[in-house]
This record gives sequence, structure tokens and C-alpha cells, in this order.
Amino acid sequence: MPESVDLLIHNAAQVVTCAGGPKRGAALADAGVIANGAVAVDGGLIVAAGPSTELRARYYARRQIDATGKVVCPGFVDCHTHLVFGGERVAEFERKLAGATYQELLAAGGGILSTMRATRAASLDELVATGTQRLHAMLRLGTTTVEIKTGYGLDTASELKLLAAIATLAGSSLLDIVPTLLAAHAVPPEFAGQPDAYVQLVVEETIPAARAWWERSPFPVAGIPLYNDVFCEAGVFDRAQSRAVLAAGLRHGLRPKIHADEFVALGGTGLAVEVGAISADHLDATPDDEIAALGASQTIAVLLPAVNFHLGSHHYANARAFVDAGAAIALATDFNPGSAPALSLPLVMAIACRYQKLLPAEAINAATINAAHAIGLGDRVGSIEPGKQADLLLVDAPDYRHLVYWLGPNLVEGVVKRGRVIRNE
Amino acid sequence: MPESVDLLIHNAAQVVTCAGGPKRGAALADAGVIANGAVAVDGGLIVAAGPSTELRARYYARRQIDATGKVVCPGFVDCHTHLVFGGERVAEFERKLAGATYQELLAAGGGILSTMRATRAASLDELVATGTQRLHAMLRLGTTTVEIKTGYGLDTASELKLLAAIATLAGSSLLDIVPTLLAAHAVPPEFAGQPDAYVQLVVEETIPAARAWWERSPFPVAGIPLYNDVFCEAGVFDRAQSRAVLAAGLRHGLRPKIHADEFVALGGTGLAVEVGAISADHLDATPDDEIAALGASQTIAVLLPAVNFHLGSHHYANARAFVDAGAAIALATDFNPGSAPALSLPLVMAIACRYQKLLPAEAINAATINAAHAIGLGDRVGSIEPGKQADLLLVDAPDYRHLVYWLGPNLVEGVVKRGRVIRNE
Repeated sequence: MPESVDLLIHNAAQVVTCAGGPKRGAALADAGVIANGAVAVDGGLIVAAGPSTELRARYYARRQIDATGKVVCPGFVDCHTHLVFGGERVAEFERKLAGATYQELLAAGGGILSTMRATRAASLDELVATGTQRLHAMLRLGTTTVEIKTGYGLDTASELKLLAAIATLAGSSLLDIVPTLLAAHAVPPEFAGQPDAYVQLVVEETIPAARAWWERSPFPVAGIPLYNDVFCEAGVFDRAQSRAVLAAGLRHGLRPKIHADEFVALGGTGLAVEVGAISADHLDATPDDEIAALGASQTIAVLLPAVNFHLGSHHYANARAFVDAGAAIALATDFNPGSAPALSLPLVMAIACRYQKLLPAEAINAATINAAHAIGLGDRVGSIEPGKQADLLLVDAPDYRHLVYWLGPNLVEGVVKRGRVIRNE
Repeated sequence: MPESVDLLIHNAAQVVTCAGGPKRGAALADAGVIANGAVAVDGGLIVAAGPSTELRARYYARRQIDATGKVVCPGFVDCHTHLVFGGERVAEFERKLAGATYQELLAAGGGILSTMRATRAASLDELVATGTQRLHAMLRLGTTTVEIKTGYGLDTASELKLLAAIATLAGSSLLDIVPTLLAAHAVPPEFAGQPDAYVQLVVEETIPAARAWWERSPFPVAGIPLYNDVFCEAGVFDRAQSRAVLAAGLRHGLRPKIHADEFVALGGTGLAVEVGAISADHLDATPDDEIAALGASQTIAVLLPAVNFHLGSHHYANARAFVDAGAAIALATDFNPGSAPALSLPLVMAIACRYQKLLPAEAINAATINAAHAIGLGDRVGSIEPGKQADLLLVDAPDYRHLVYWLGPNLVEGVVKRGRVIRNE
């Protein structure tokens, strides 16, 4: 006698499971395709994935979705964003296209500190309102889990305001949200020319305060971690300063992440491996020996090619070298107003295929299961496996490779989030 | 007493008119922004555009749309597509990413001739059905006028089948469609190694047959032209063969277009100027003297950066040199299954800003009024001016520059086509 479940999505041209991560090497090139597949869902969790005929015999579903001619894949996981900020930087973007130099942009009030000013000036309600709109746009494009960093407050009170905004979004949004403290995102104007003094503030005040906030926070989902991140880059924080920030986080139980080698190689990737960071992100200028070290470690290599695209760069992170070194690579948007106003993981995947020569299967694994591992949720989201959250996409194409092939249209026809069905139209 | 009109869109943060083309030089960098603007529409035509307070006093509208916080701009004009074809080439795309050579792809049955085979095998109904889906996707992304080329038939009967499919789409679609004969798109297998013999067939049989078809065709909109195009490229048709094809078209009253300098400079851009082509398209490898000649001519320079993006190229057409030479540049998708599976003009504009350093105003003028001039419809569509068709977009942003700044979301909230309002959701 058939078992009763809430939902059966059946007759899909492909169920793409992305199962079994973090994925490296040959496994990364295998998306886990079940032709003519089905997925059974109950209580917000995946019960089974397999051939459609088999699951239709095994389950009686209160709701059925006929996915004939369509793909079912895991909801996308955006594992690196700066989603909560005030203002935007469209005028600065235009000035840059017209050839303005970095100094001219700063003189015009541009750059990261302009976003800091707008963010400090914004109320919690304003930050939550714009954040909600951005999350809604991401959900329409298939993202069901998002990491969000602080980092535009740059003083303890403002960083805590950003954590509060992220917590509020986590409580009100359908998406799962993972917070990261990035107090060491830039040197604020109060500490201009004194990065060590700002690092001392972050180490002695902001990180302990964030940890204390976290202890008593109403963060809605049990087991969601708080990460601690630093921008290790020439002119921002050097390797020693970055180590101090990450070590302070570790003393307070916050696992490290790091912005490493975006423009200049300062040893940030090696530092990530040394401190056991869950991820090292950007990696555009990583030297070969550090690529090898990362490949031999458990740290996920998060690549952010929308940045290179947005900056009109002809240099992209050497994704194939990371794959060849055995690294588990992930893809994320890096959504932020300055270097990546990018909301779409399918577009990031499309860029990665063309400019980093990832195969479609590698790209989809990188934006799902490996991205989930980059934020510590690999046992909960990112693949279609029994026991995981039912975070699924219904894609209007007969083959998952169409997600990266066609440029422009949103092929995500519907999203299932923890078993709840949301149609895009 | 107020004049009665069908529709008034008022209170727009910006009405972006793109008026007064074809636009060159400084005019190209002016999008024609009316702050707090309105557009009055009657009988499917634009009656007036101006300050909102003024138009609200002047007109009484049976239907009003409050565009507070939004932009109203002209519908996009996609002036270079190969929209009607059988099959797709996603497997070939994947093989290319994995490093397959051109010879290996050909041996695997890939390349343009695979699309020719699928197109010849497709029925008229099948071509119309897939074409309809693609036009619908484009309309959602803001395209309201589309040029469509033949060129996957490569024998007279199949080329006429493609013209019939385009005519059927023109009759059934909301979009305005302009047809172009591109019988000289490739050398078909029946003429392998004999391009001159195929050119002779095109000149003596296909072009006259297309002209005769055009004479008796039910093409639905009076005054829509039929163009004649050729792929002038190394290994395809040289300059002399291209001239023969375009001259034959001219003898039959078909104005020339040309695919010039996509990979190798063969003098195609100079030929375009010589024969008075309405546009020269691609222009990735055009030498300086031909850029200067084009800039001094009436021929529109159609740039297709989605091709360079799709091919993962680090070389793009030198858009700034064309602008500096005084050329009226247009942007188009080049939508086709091999080198540009791109349906979105906003994405093309986004690529052009980043990799060709166009300003947002230049990009929007290039995708509207200048694109309209590239297909001879500059007096009818492409800008918000009294007497033109009411082809308008309602954009969910307070500033038109957001259309190229945010990457991924479809900001087109609604489309007005000849006065008819179509909401995206």
C-alpha cells in the first residue's frame, strides 16, 4: 500500500540531485541526473528521489506536480553576499565607465565608505525593507539559502545593527539565512591610516560584542552558525592583521571565513588553511603553492566571477587550477553595491562556464551542494537527498545545462522552500 | 478643457525618451530624461511626453498608470537575431567548454550545419511554435520590435520556409517583426568547397524567389522592409562574393545588411559603406580606416557583444572608436543557438557597458532609437515622441541606469505595445 506524503513532483525530464558533497574532481563534474525522475516531499523534507514510475507506485501524494519536460534541481545556495546596505552606487558605476580614477571616485565621495555612510545613516527598518526586496528578487531567480555579511557599519554599534537586520530578515524571509560578521571589511574614517588600531577595536570590542549578541539573539533556526570574516588585501588588512581578527573570532567560537587574493596575493589563502577557515573567497591572484594547499584542505574555494565581470576585467580566478588541485569549489554572487550588483546565481554560473571554463555540471554543483558546505549547511540543504530540506527548483527546460546556456531569461518557473510551493507567475 | 486619451502613465521618476536619432557623439550620451514625467497615449500612438503636472492638466485619460518611483522608456528594439531555427546546441556548448576543437565539433556533427539540418527537418508549425516561445521570452525582457534573419535553410525552398515562419510570427505576435533574407549565411553541404556556385544559386534563384514571395506575401504591417544580408568572413564568403550577393539584392529592391569583420577583416565594413547598407554588424576586427569610413556614412554600426561573451572571448568590438568616429552605434543580441543564445537586451547592454565602456545612456540609445534606425523603423519605434507607436516599458527602478547596473533581475515590470498594457505578473 502506498505511503502518504505531502507532495510528489513527478515525470521530470531530469531530477538533478547534486548529491554527495563537498564535491571535488570527477565528482564535481557529475550533477547526479535521474532521467524521468520524481521527488517525494513530506513535512518540509525530502523523502525520496528516484525514477518517476517507482516513486509513483510507492507514494500517494496529497499534492502532485507534473514536471513533464522540466528539470527539478536543488534550490541555489548563495554562500557569499553583502546583502544588507544603505544606498546604491549607480552614479559611481557610471563615473567609472567614463574613466574616472580611484582617486577621483574617492574625491567624489564614492567607494566603500560611501556605502558605510549610507548604511550608518539607515534605520533598522530601512535596512530590513531593502534587504527584503533583494531577497525576494533572489528567490525568484532560484536562490533558497543566503549567507549575508555585515561590514558596512565599521563601528561596533553599526555592525550590531547589521546583525540585527540580518536576524530580522532571517525571521521574516522564506529563505534560510546564515550571518557572517565582517567588521574587518575596511578601515573606517575614524581610524584612517591606523589599521592596527581598528583591528584592536574589532578584536577587543566588536567580536566579543557580536558573540554576546549571538548568545542572546533570537536567530530563528537552530544550528545556524555565526561566521567571522576579514578582507585580507593590500591597502586593507595584511596577513598579520587578518590572522589577529580570525584568531579573535576563534577564541569566541566563531569559525573563520576570509576574503583572500582578490587583487594582490598576501598569503590569505594559506592563512585560511592554517586557521581551518570553512571557506576562502575570491582567489583571483592565488599563487600555485597556496592553490595546492587549499586543494589538500577541507576549506571550500569560493569563486566570485560576477566581480570580475562587473569590473570589466579580463582576469578571472583560475577555477580549473583549483579543480585540478582537488579543491571543492563553490560559486556565489558576492552581491554588493560596489563590485558586484549581482542577484542571479544562474548568471554567475553562466559567467563561470564562459570565462572560467567550468562545465555546466561543475557550475551547478558549485552553486548548490558545495556552496552549502561553504556555510556549514551541507547536511541540510544544497542537494536532493532523503532527510534534507525540500528546497527545490522547477526549471522550464528539459536539461539542466540550459540553465547556463540561454542568456537572459529566468528559467526558474517555481520554487519549493521547505516543502512550500511558490510559483513565479 | 482636458483632451481625452486612452492612457496616461504619470508620476514616473523618469521618462527616458531616447528622442532624436540616429544618435551620434554627444547626442548618443543623452538619453533624454524627463524627471517626474508622463506619457499620453491614444489610438496606440504616443500623443505627448513631458512633465507629469503638465500632462495631467492637459489630458483626461480613460486609463491611468501611476509610475511613482519607476522609469518609463521605449520598448527595446533587437535589430539582429536569428530567432527561427530547429534544435539547440547545448551539447556542443558543453563540448566546447571541455576544450573540443572546431574540427572535433564538426566531426561530432556540430556547428552551423547541425542547425541547418534541424531547421530543414522542422515543419513550419514547429518553427512557429519555438519562435513564439522565444518572442514571448524577449517581450518579458522588454523587447517590442525584432529583426529576424533566415539563414539556416541554405536552399531556396528552406529559406522560403523560414520567411514563411517569420511572416506567420509577424502576424500572430504582439511584437513588430522585420524579416531579413540571409541565404548567404554559410555554404551548404551540397556546395561544399564551391562557395561561388552557391553564391550563383543565391543570386540567380534564392534572391529572386524571396523577392517574388515578398511581393505576394501577407506580411502584416505596411511599410515593413525585407533586407538582404551576407556573412562576409574568412572561410564563408569573401568580399567579392559578398558584393555579388548584396548587388543581386539591390537589383531586386532589397536593401543590404552585412555580417562584417566578426573574426577576420575582409573589407566587409568598407563594402557596407560602398553599397549603402542600412547596417554593418559585428565589427570586432574592423581596421581604423573602415571605422572612419563607417563613421562618415549613414550606415548603422550594430555591435553584438553577447557573442564575444558567449565565446568567453577577451576581445570585444572597439565601441569607443566607433563612437569617436561619429558612427551611430546600435546593440543587438544576435540571438542564435551557436554563438549567442542570448534573449535579453538589458544583459547585452550590461555587457557593453562593462567590456566596451559604453555609458548607460549610450547603451539605452543603442538598444532603442539607433537599433530602430538599423532596421529602417526609426520613424515608427525606438523613442518616446509624439506620433510614434506607443511601445513603452515600465521599469521597476527610479533611474534608467539601474537597468544596466543590477545584474540578473528582470526590472521590466510591464510592457505597453501599441498602447496595449501587458503586465509581467
